[in-house]
Amino acid sequence: MLTYSFDKSKGPLYQQVYQAVKEDILKGKIRPEDKLPSKRNLAKNLGCSTITIENAYNQLMIEGFVYSKEKRGYYVAEGIPLMEQVRPLLHPTFHQVESLDDSISQTDSNNPSLRLGQAVDDGWSGKENGLNDISAPLIDFDFSSSRIETSHFPFSVMAKMIRETISKQKEDLLEVSPSGGVRALREAIAEHLASFRGMNVSPKQIIVGAGTEYLYRLIIQLLGREKVYCIENPGYKKLKKIYESNKVTCCLAGMDEKGIKIGDLRQNKADIAHINPAHHFPTGISTQIARRYELLAFANERPGRYIIEDDYDSEFRFTGKPLPTLQSIDASEKVIYLNTFSKSLTSTIRISYMVLPTHLVHRYERELGFYSCTVSTFEQYWLARFIQEGYFEKHINRMRLYYGRKRESILKKIQACFLEKQYELIENQAGLHFILKLRTSLGDEEVKSRLLEQGIGIHSLSDYDMKDSQKDTHCFLINYAGMDLDLLEKALIKLKELVDAHP
Amino acid sequence: MLTYSFDKSKGPLYQQVYQAVKEDILKGKIRPEDKLPSKRNLAKNLGCSTITIENAYNQLMIEGFVYSKEKRGYYVAEGIPLMEQVRPLLHPTFHQVESLDDSISQTDSNNPSLRLGQAVDDGWSGKENGLNDISAPLIDFDFSSSRIETSHFPFSVMAKMIRETISKQKEDLLEVSPSGGVRALREAIAEHLASFRGMNVSPKQIIVGAGTEYLYRLIIQLLGREKVYCIENPGYKKLKKIYESNKVTCCLAGMDEKGIKIGDLRQNKADIAHINPAHHFPTGISTQIARRYELLAFANERPGRYIIEDDYDSEFRFTGKPLPTLQSIDASEKVIYLNTFSKSLTSTIRISYMVLPTHLVHRYERELGFYSCTVSTFEQYWLARFIQEGYFEKHINRMRLYYGRKRESILKKIQACFLEKQYELIENQAGLHFILKLRTSLGDEEVKSRLLEQGIGIHSLSDYDMKDSQKDTHCFLINYAGMDLDLLEKALIKLKELVDAHP
Repeated sequence: MLTYSFDKSKGPLYQQVYQAVKEDILKGKIRPEDKLPSKRNLAKNLGCSTITIENAYNQLMIEGFVYSKEKRGYYVAEGIPLMEQVRPLLHPTFHQVESLDDSISQTDSNNPSLRLGQAVDDGWSGKENGLNDISAPLIDFDFSSSRIETSHFPFSVMAKMIRETISKQKEDLLEVSPSGGVRALREAIAEHLASFRGMNVSPKQIIVGAGTEYLYRLIIQLLGREKVYCIENPGYKKLKKIYESNKVTCCLAGMDEKGIKIGDLRQNKADIAHINPAHHFPTGISTQIARRYELLAFANERPGRYIIEDDYDSEFRFTGKPLPTLQSIDASEKVIYLNTFSKSLTSTIRISYMVLPTHLVHRYERELGFYSCTVSTFEQYWLARFIQEGYFEKHINRMRLYYGRKRESILKKIQACFLEKQYELIENQAGLHFILKLRTSLGDEEVKSRLLEQGIGIHSLSDYDMKDSQKDTHCFLINYAGMDLDLLEKALIKLKELVDAHP
Repeated sequence: MLTYSFDKSKGPLYQQVYQAVKEDILKGKIRPEDKLPSKRNLAKNLGCSTITIENAYNQLMIEGFVYSKEKRGYYVAEGIPLMEQVRPLLHPTFHQVESLDDSISQTDSNNPSLRLGQAVDDGWSGKENGLNDISAPLIDFDFSSSRIETSHFPFSVMAKMIRETISKQKEDLLEVSPSGGVRALREAIAEHLASFRGMNVSPKQIIVGAGTEYLYRLIIQLLGREKVYCIENPGYKKLKKIYESNKVTCCLAGMDEKGIKIGDLRQNKADIAHINPAHHFPTGISTQIARRYELLAFANERPGRYIIEDDYDSEFRFTGKPLPTLQSIDASEKVIYLNTFSKSLTSTIRISYMVLPTHLVHRYERELGFYSCTVSTFEQYWLARFIQEGYFEKHINRMRLYYGRKRESILKKIQACFLEKQYELIENQAGLHFILKLRTSLGDEEVKSRLLEQGIGIHSLSDYDMKDSQKDTHCFLINYAGMDLDLLEKALIKLKELVDAHP
């Protein structure tokens, strides 16, 4: 039987168990295909609760160290290099198989166990029999889950579009797509941008690609690896990873209430500012108009400076008129506009697009136009038809109405649950997430781990701080798009209990 | 009226016209939206044939300098930077918008006009009204077109698969795909590789991506930018471009009749050898078994050396048993196997895959596993179903039979057309192309330009020589997959006339 001793100061117990077992696996003390002790037995032996062991085992499964066999228990996975063999494996990103979508997955979890709901099929190493047969899920409710509502996905219209596309456009379907996408789709997107975002762009400026991550890479190739790319902090951690894994310099600029700080861009000698001006992730800040012009002025000071405008969930603004895009007030060809169908349709459709300024269209054609388009013609044509025939607009309108009501109802539940002095809502009537600020003496990590022990996942704003400078923000992300309203109340009560106990 | 003078020694007349008009556009002598003289008038004025002007105009259209308006004539496109403004635009790759598929497009044309058949929708700059209303096409017949036969594409089965997928797998479709692809597809591919290529791989080793070009980039990220990548010469020019546009060192190794030359790999200090061992493009050479072991031994000499086995058209072997893949005789985890559904289904479906050795699977998960899969779940699931239910195998078998017969019939037509002493066929009963060697005193360029004047496209082996060392190979690529048999005979007669006239 495994025996470990623990130290309360070293963080949650389940993490210590997880860490201890992981080390034993990496050191070869526990070998591939070895059976782990049952949860009940190990809990008894270590003097902790079964839930603690279950949480530890689940985390080991998520990271691929362990898999479970139905009704037989937990086993060590094969193919894990031992510690002596490959030292860097101890790096915390080991087996961090994250294949969540670009913008959808902006809740880039610090705690892998929080990804359970989303990532059931995610890891692969030795856990085919893994997550599906967990008797009790680790997370019953997740305030910050990046899921979106899928019950409203327009399957029947999609099926109709595909049927029509296959029956009417056989030749088109077998004709190789231009590098930037088929004309029909780019025209449809241009029309959509005109009516939805007031943008006046030529279809030629639109480049379609298999997800925004793919487009980020194209942008790096287009603008150059020697450039300094700067992203917003707090922000979307995966973006930093993507830049770093492409071996380009990625630095961080802070935010104030008006948007990204221009001073930080200067201090970092940034060439490229990659931002979410409409609705920043995760703070929800909308870049103020004055700051927008400052940003354009900054970009205009030197050739080679650009702004990447990542407009990932702009479809969902509930009241008021959205600010015009940076792209549409950019007179100097300094803005690359980016958007995706991930939020508005489903993240499992891999279609995103960017709008290049004209001189970059020429550069694209010259330098990257030889690349094949990464989206199949089948998906391009059915989506073009879906947009052209008005279904996309209908779908967005329906979802906006739906999300607007859901948002209202969640805000009301929160207001009803807490005393006025206990919380603050930071939200600007847009997007699929907002911030709940709690007046509690508990630190962010404490709140998270105490909720986790009760089966509730939540992310604090500090989780998105890439400089780890903000320890206790008391701000928590409420990602409500895929939230189960029936479970919300129970979860809120637990949250309230925490705040009540630690005012 | 435009007036130019020409010099017969400077190459085909149409190219001189093309060059002269292009220069006038780049110099701003002819301005955007200016109407060009009609073909007939310009031909009269310059004292050449209408066909010559048409060829020149077509090339200008393909490169985006000019577009045509139906029944109104040819106009200069907008948005072309003038010569003074952007010097590098004069580089010959200007507007070389090639979005042909990975392997499909291995006829990376030297002469852009040869791409007409394939690339109708390809360019974008100012030629929306362009190529569709050309009264007489430049190329009536193309021996080297990379088209594949599309009339046999199984649309009805595909529609059935999609219908079933949408009706039975709604939840799966909305579940985010693991980075490497959904399990169902990876399992289906593993089974297919086992039955078709005798390969024993785990689904976990398979990484699905949106086209081989995307996978090439992943491989570069996985193996490292500092590595020296080496490709076969002659070979697939686009591959070199892809490596170069990713800023990695790409060198060339020559071929002998056994395969890539190991000596050249050593001389180039290559770390990675990227090869087509089953059926080399364009020579058709199959890497001999002894050379295969030499390659593996070479890779084994040092850590960090790998072989990329690009098995792009291995489904189409007509007689005999194919050599086992390098991957299956590799005992030391040195081979990355790559294949695509482009040749076997259609290049417009953007699904390719690679098989990683186990230790690279771990590295992938650790370093790149955070990337979203670039193929939508919709396409992954219908394709998985298509493979699992046996339709893919049926389709390949049917197409192999079909291509086998077509190949036979084309070989017979060639044999019937030429005298025995006039030609040699270089083919090894595999793949969708072979080499026709002609005994003629004409140089390769002469053959090509004389045929082009008669509306016939053809590529010589020298077109694929990236060192430009082989001037006159007398070897021509016959890409027969999409060939129109009715037109073949006429084209062969013209080829025969050339050989007869210049023995």
